[in-house]
Amino acid sequence: MIIVMRRGAPPEQVEAVRQRILAMGFKAHLSQGEEQTLLGVIGDERRLSAGVFEILPGVEKILPILKPFRMASRDFHPSDTVVQVGAERVGAKGVAVMAGPCAVESYEQTLAIAQAVKASGVRILRGGAYKPRTSPYAFQGLGPKGLEILSAVRKELDLKIVTEVLTPSDVELVCRHADLLQVGARNMQNFTLLAELGKASKPVLLKRGMMSTLEELLMSAEYVLSNGNPHVILCERGIRTFERYTRNTLDLSAVPLLKKLSHLPVIVDPSHATGVKDLVGPMSLAALAAGADGLLIDVHHLPEQALCDGAQALLPADFADLVGKLKGVATAVGRTL
Amino acid sequence: MIIVMRRGAPPEQVEAVRQRILAMGFKAHLSQGEEQTLLGVIGDERRLSAGVFEILPGVEKILPILKPFRMASRDFHPSDTVVQVGAERVGAKGVAVMAGPCAVESYEQTLAIAQAVKASGVRILRGGAYKPRTSPYAFQGLGPKGLEILSAVRKELDLKIVTEVLTPSDVELVCRHADLLQVGARNMQNFTLLAELGKASKPVLLKRGMMSTLEELLMSAEYVLSNGNPHVILCERGIRTFERYTRNTLDLSAVPLLKKLSHLPVIVDPSHATGVKDLVGPMSLAALAAGADGLLIDVHHLPEQALCDGAQALLPADFADLVGKLKGVATAVGRTL
Amino acid sequence: MIIVMRRGAPPEQVEAVRQRILAMGFKAHLSQGEEQTLLGVIGDERRLSAGVFEILPGVEKILPILKPFRMASRDFHPSDTVVQVGAERVGAKGVAVMAGPCAVESYEQTLAIAQAVKASGVRILRGGAYKPRTSPYAFQGLGPKGLEILSAVRKELDLKIVTEVLTPSDVELVCRHADLLQVGARNMQNFTLLAELGKASKPVLLKRGMMSTLEELLMSAEYVLSNGNPHVILCERGIRTFERYTRNTLDLSAVPLLKKLSHLPVIVDPSHATGVKDLVGPMSLAALAAGADGLLIDVHHLPEQALCDGAQALLPADFADLVGKLKGVATAVGRTL
Amino acid sequence: MIIVMRRGAPPEQVEAVRQRILAMGFKAHLSQGEEQTLLGVIGDERRLSAGVFEILPGVEKILPILKPFRMASRDFHPSDTVVQVGAERVGAKGVAVMAGPCAVESYEQTLAIAQAVKASGVRILRGGAYKPRTSPYAFQGLGPKGLEILSAVRKELDLKIVTEVLTPSDVELVCRHADLLQVGARNMQNFTLLAELGKASKPVLLKRGMMSTLEELLMSAEYVLSNGNPHVILCERGIRTFERYTRNTLDLSAVPLLKKLSHLPVIVDPSHATGVKDLVGPMSLAALAAGADGLLIDVHHLPEQALCDGAQALLPADFADLVGKLKGVATAVGRTL
Repeated sequence: MIIVMRRGAPPEQVEAVRQRILAMGFKAHLSQGEEQTLLGVIGDERRLSAGVFEILPGVEKILPILKPFRMASRDFHPSDTVVQVGAERVGAKGVAVMAGPCAVESYEQTLAIAQAVKASGVRILRGGAYKPRTSPYAFQGLGPKGLEILSAVRKELDLKIVTEVLTPSDVELVCRHADLLQVGARNMQNFTLLAELGKASKPVLLKRGMMSTLEELLMSAEYVLSNGNPHVILCERGIRTFERYTRNTLDLSAVPLLKKLSHLPVIVDPSHATGVKDLVGPMSLAALAAGADGLLIDVHHLPEQALCDGAQALLPADFADLVGKLKGVATAVGRTL
Repeated sequence: MIIVMRRGAPPEQVEAVRQRILAMGFKAHLSQGEEQTLLGVIGDERRLSAGVFEILPGVEKILPILKPFRMASRDFHPSDTVVQVGAERVGAKGVAVMAGPCAVESYEQTLAIAQAVKASGVRILRGGAYKPRTSPYAFQGLGPKGLEILSAVRKELDLKIVTEVLTPSDVELVCRHADLLQVGARNMQNFTLLAELGKASKPVLLKRGMMSTLEELLMSAEYVLSNGNPHVILCERGIRTFERYTRNTLDLSAVPLLKKLSHLPVIVDPSHATGVKDLVGPMSLAALAAGADGLLIDVHHLPEQALCDGAQALLPADFADLVGKLKGVATAVGRTL
Repeated sequence: MIIVMRRGAPPEQVEAVRQRILAMGFKAHLSQGEEQTLLGVIGDERRLSAGVFEILPGVEKILPILKPFRMASRDFHPSDTVVQVGAERVGAKGVAVMAGPCAVESYEQTLAIAQAVKASGVRILRGGAYKPRTSPYAFQGLGPKGLEILSAVRKELDLKIVTEVLTPSDVELVCRHADLLQVGARNMQNFTLLAELGKASKPVLLKRGMMSTLEELLMSAEYVLSNGNPHVILCERGIRTFERYTRNTLDLSAVPLLKKLSHLPVIVDPSHATGVKDLVGPMSLAALAAGADGLLIDVHHLPEQALCDGAQALLPADFADLVGKLKGVATAVGRTL
Repeated sequence: MIIVMRRGAPPEQVEAVRQRILAMGFKAHLSQGEEQTLLGVIGDERRLSAGVFEILPGVEKILPILKPFRMASRDFHPSDTVVQVGAERVGAKGVAVMAGPCAVESYEQTLAIAQAVKASGVRILRGGAYKPRTSPYAFQGLGPKGLEILSAVRKELDLKIVTEVLTPSDVELVCRHADLLQVGARNMQNFTLLAELGKASKPVLLKRGMMSTLEELLMSAEYVLSNGNPHVILCERGIRTFERYTRNTLDLSAVPLLKKLSHLPVIVDPSHATGVKDLVGPMSLAALAAGADGLLIDVHHLPEQALCDGAQALLPADFADLVGKLKGVATAVGRTL
């Protein structure tokens, strides 16, 4: 941490800041510039709050040096982490395509879509039993009954399941039915939930909040990791911007950046990012080319009857076509699918 | 809801959309423009998901007409709602100033600050027992012990308490110690928590999420209202933008807009919005001038020792000065303080 | 255009709006919903300003129906436009890779980089003679001397030149030295410049402003097209968001969206979008996979001595490697390079 | 400037960076942290481009220390600058209210509105002769004829004129008719125009771009100042965010921040910021309370016939009411009006 003193700050103020650094158990390093004086704080600044110094007389600003995340950092764990979801190894050479309906609506619907995506080679079925919805009047998911449907389909088709968990008290129940626990964008900073997932027995799929920086995403991963669960997959799903033709703006540069900053696998959800069916294909191909370790894609056999987000769902036939194209791009960038 | 057909969409597609509208129990109204055909959906569109029509062949886009919030809307409840927090009536002519430390750190700290703000006329003490923090390594609040400290200070000084609740399972406990339950920005779309607060016995202070539109804020209020709790206060606390000199960008036009769209009281938190002590005074005065029904201000007697957000806390003496200026502006805009 | 009347607006207000529509030479279409009344304006709404109706008593809001761009629209020109820059056909099956230094610094520097990129197959050299810089104290480009250097290198190596023009009075001069006239992000809404370029003899490369919606980009293209120059290439180069690890957020969903809304070719500038050398490769591959018709890439043989944006420039050897990978992805998505 | 080396960067890399600093004529200051090594660059970093170092092996990131603006900075000029526009002193104790139509439409319209605002005490008339419009099909202003109308009204009513100039070649002409030259939001980084205005004989009103940080605004002011014109007024007019109820988000914290960072006067345009007539009053009052030195307000006597932005214009009677309220708030914060 570097403390920048105001231009013309008198020596007494500089000294007072230096004494405060020492009093907190750090070493201080003075650097006299031509216009301004700097004080370096030597030690583990992650234990410090910037506000402690910002408030002192004569201080202009604080510049953090160290990355605030530690266990999520590639410095901490240089090799790639591979998260195992059944036989699927997310973060290895093979690209993991997870697909299925946005929401579980019935056994028949889930089974039909699951059969279709399995036929295209998918081994992890997505489907929401709990749906966080902006409106209290919208369909909120089938809840526990939805989980049971997922379990039944999992058994019947030998698929693995990824599904969302909304609140700490549901974690145990969802763990019994799911192979991968999804934290949605709106819950990325639900720290109580993250801490609970740190104690869970299943891997976690952590979606980036629509207003969250990559640093905040990695800090949320840090909550899970530091509470004891090392199996975290990161997911880029679009951030909120001023652009209105898409629901969110898919930030694909997040993929190579996260891979550089962290050892955790990174997947992309082009369906929720764009909210537009026609963009799912191009953005899936682009995500793979950018280095994504997997994709999360909405598929529905009767999208015009979907209870949730039908406008972004691919038909099974379109999804099968897309998988064919994805194989071509995967090969071109040295991956398999 | 208006369904806009693509330029050149054939009559069969238009008819199919019309049939679908009728099949869902709505009336359809056809409007033939020079370039494009429109179909109006007559009925309560809040029951409808736009995706149901977006997916149909020939449809270009969907334009919602009705506001999606109902109980939060001024159409539904034309007169101002006044929320009672003890003797303080939030949303009436008097401006409610809530102040106190960001976090409860100890009984002595809380008592000292509470005495100071009470001396300036404050009747509602703020203070966090549960602190949602970006980093798992930062001070997370004293939890239940913090609530007990608040209760003790409340009793000792005859103040009312506003404090944050993070997760549904804590609602009951926090209700026992607090007079006003705060939902923080990161939890504005924690729908499980909102539904639980709809059944709580205390009023709710709902902060706008840093990435949330005003419509989404009102929809979150709708979760509380529609679950049975009519006592909701809205709070603007800054949104996330590209500007970097402030932590967030305080959106004061939200104040008159929310007062126009809704009957609920609106307060402003200039401390968390800006994150900069020097801006709290000007932004507090501006908030009052814009029509805010109250303020939520961080005060700390030893900000350089604060465990959380010291850089934005006012000293008691500066706060007392500010209250004096606030009285002047309140009078100028026909309010009292 | 749909005019939405307020809930409970009396019939006289509705009638007054209807009369105003008729008085302006449009037809009016009344639609009575359950809660609100709508009035459709039949005719070419592009001639109308929404404000004309917004101000009338009883009006709640205005919903535009027609896209405000016309000549840039795919409705107007259904087949793809191919823009010819010398022998290079931008917008056809072949992907156009334009590369070179951010700024022209000297004849030697420009020649050395031009030779390197030509060796990798590049036929259009980029290089700035006029550099718009945030700081008045930063290097502002060589100006006319830079144009002469570009002309000399063009002749020597038989390359085509794309370079930026900043102000209307320079258009004629830049036209004499360049084959493709670049409008930078900060000038995307410099309408005086756009109108002048509409009369220019060379094609235009129009970069998206960092705060501009796709609709605004297409409206700026419309300025060039409607002033008489049909040769416009659109360029996505990142938008401004809250994310801080990258300079801007590259919005790749803009590529398929622009191709759908418009007939104009779309290229991507991953260098300026990210500002980070290590991200240029992955984002170039992703842009191709998303359907881009070309790329604009910064290359510098001595980036640590570059006078402008060295941190984002690829070394010639890294660029050559990237071209190899781009060929693989191009093939996978049915393009050539 | 601080150069942060990567964790584990070998001593040779640190030494190479140090040599590079020295070779560029600066002093280097080494600081060895527990995890990372830092190098301070001692000297005037404004002469440096960060990219020069970012590209060197082993460098993780660059942290600028000095503010990049100099002449605009309060460090450079500690006392408040007062800009004289006729008898009106902008930046002194009196608040300057500038008002008038968005666009000059005719002599009669301009005169009528000018008379009305003069009756409310306004001494500076606003009115656009050149209108930058998103659409090439929208009214673009009367141009030189508009300037002549403004001149005639100025003479007739003894008012001062503020009007926009769009392009460098118009500066001289606009100077002959205007007392204050406005640079619009879309031109805030039209550096050719700013440099030209640095040589102009009239003061400049510089509006913040809708995507511009405060630092960029001050850098644009620096263009004018460093080219020789010390008379610059800054104007906050809203920034682009995700919120959709307002056209832009008025960032009032910019007012106290700019006053702290710079000595230049700061005014606010609530009309263009919000785009909504009903918000102009509350936001004007709030701007004054936040410390603004003036306001720029759209007034129109026949807003439903306005050729531009009628929806945000106040009627003369509403404007007169607002001026009354503004006087109350001005008094409350120690200003006059």
